Amino acid sequence: LKKNELSIIQSIRRRAAKAAPQAARIRLGIGDDAAVLEALPRGQELLVTTDLLIEGSHFRRERHPARALGHKALARGLSDIAAMGGQPLYALLSVCLPPWAGEKWRKQFFAGLFHLARSAGVALVGGDLSAGGRFAADIVVLGSAARGQVLQRSRAAPGELIYVSGSLGGSALGLARLRRGQCSRADPAVRRHLYPIPRLALGRFLAEKLHVQAAMDLSDGLSLDLFRMAAESRVGAEIWAEALPVFPGANRGQALHGGEDYELLFTLGSGRQVPRSFEGVPLTAIGVVTRSRRLSLIGPGGRRTRLPVGGFQHKLA
Amino acid sequence: LKKNELSIIQSIRRRAAKAAPQAARIRLGIGDDAAVLEALPRGQELLVTTDLLIEGSHFRRERHPARALGHKALARGLSDIAAMGGQPLYALLSVCLPPWAGEKWRKQFFAGLFHLARSAGVALVGGDLSAGGRFAADIVVLGSAARGQVLQRSRAAPGELIYVSGSLGGSALGLARLRRGQCSRADPAVRRHLYPIPRLALGRFLAEKLHVQAAMDLSDGLSLDLFRMAAESRVGAEIWAEALPVFPGANRGQALHGGEDYELLFTLGSGRQVPRSFEGVPLTAIGVVTRSRRLSLIGPGGRRTRLPVGGFQHKLA
Repeated sequence: LKKNELSIIQSIRRRAAKAAPQAARIRLGIGDDAAVLEALPRGQELLVTTDLLIEGSHFRRERHPARALGHKALARGLSDIAAMGGQPLYALLSVCLPPWAGEKWRKQFFAGLFHLARSAGVALVGGDLSAGGRFAADIVVLGSAARGQVLQRSRAAPGELIYVSGSLGGSALGLARLRRGQCSRADPAVRRHLYPIPRLALGRFLAEKLHVQAAMDLSDGLSLDLFRMAAESRVGAEIWAEALPVFPGANRGQALHGGEDYELLFTLGSGRQVPRSFEGVPLTAIGVVTRSRRLSLIGPGGRRTRLPVGGFQHKLA
Repeated sequence: LKKNELSIIQSIRRRAAKAAPQAARIRLGIGDDAAVLEALPRGQELLVTTDLLIEGSHFRRERHPARALGHKALARGLSDIAAMGGQPLYALLSVCLPPWAGEKWRKQFFAGLFHLARSAGVALVGGDLSAGGRFAADIVVLGSAARGQVLQRSRAAPGELIYVSGSLGGSALGLARLRRGQCSRADPAVRRHLYPIPRLALGRFLAEKLHVQAAMDLSDGLSLDLFRMAAESRVGAEIWAEALPVFPGANRGQALHGGEDYELLFTLGSGRQVPRSFEGVPLTAIGVVTRSRRLSLIGPGGRRTRLPVGGFQHKLA
């Protein structure tokens, strides 16, 4: 890799420079020991998130095209910024390239990454390149939010309604189809799994217009992520099974426990008006925050059961 | 891992909160989708760097103790900030834990990381946790520098002298000894390999007091890193073999090509006074920047040969 390193970095750098929407605020981009960025304007706070994408843990080479991986590596970080109600500005990418990731593969990977970066208004300003046996990538996304207007998963309060954006279970359904070798990329579920859309505009709308306090993104499935939000907020939740917006073709198990939908989960006082959709994405009330620190599922006919968390029985307290 | 995740994160978070020296400027630390940080004061610029540390590529489990890996993961990022002349402020850690990294191992890993964080004045504010077959960690370090006072590897100019801090080849020697099973951790070379010291105070001294323009850290060996500096600066270099400060017991090959010394390489006009040492760390002139874009080694008796670059023959132009 060392031999190729300079030319790989040069090609990424050329591409990054062409695509950079924040050029004026980048003092120094790719190519030095660190990126140098202009300080944020007064009244803004800095958001930082970092996410690993590892072969074998998060994807399989034979199932996930390079272009989708470049997209997803960045989408994971952008979705975190969306969940905070922020505006993404910069990204850095650390990548460990195995021998099989040749020029063509890398080209596709970066095509996926830069396509999403451009549409999100994000500049790639740095990273790290090494060689190894398995592919690994870590994406860092820096963003900004107005001071005091940040969404936090720890702010859910008893009595608030629980909402999700879009529909759930699509990514799990798409993955199941890919596993069965049904690889049509026109299939909406497969597309949802390979090319998830971070809800950036929605996150800002929730923070700035609806004055939502509590939100997070759904990366590991509704039940596990709701468990995390409840634990951080020291509350419980009741989920209405019949209200869940299930992705067409998915089952309720996929909607409750399937990961990687990258929709937003948020809460808001029941007196507050939430529009039915935002920019074409439905917003659905699916339950209520409770003082009792249990996670319950209310089924047909009002039958209450304990909500299993991603297959495990987590204890909240 | 999901089952343990909350308790692992809680224990890291408690530790990070105790150790955090920047608490007042951290709006939101570990535990949400992103960290939230107060914007830097006016006149400061933001430095960001990201570095992967991967099992099999950067270390071997049987050779590298957990504590040393925690130290080194962070040291790599801090060294990048040192090379820019900056002050490190915050770190984020993404980590992929394999089944063998049990509680005891993790405890040691974080002990090494937090010990260095405390001594460098850095707060751990976020990260990402996943499970996988091999250990991988990505460290992100955020820092600051006064506007326009950033050291850049692209600023070396013909006629300037080339300096290095400390001595070279110690890490390569220590690794060679570890490979031969000579594992005494009191051995200075082994310590240099396992617990490298990022030259943070020196980096700031170079930028603020000596008004150095060009610097980088030596992570991959003098020859390869000098090649990178020369390529970025569009210059060449002559290295005086006899002047190299070789780590006691190391050979010249290790000093020229051995990685992971994490010393600083910098250039300064020959009319400028550089002290012989800074806080006990020697500063040694080892060559001169040339207009001709070759890398040469001047040996005993003035014999000039081409400087081989980390085993490869790189072409500069």
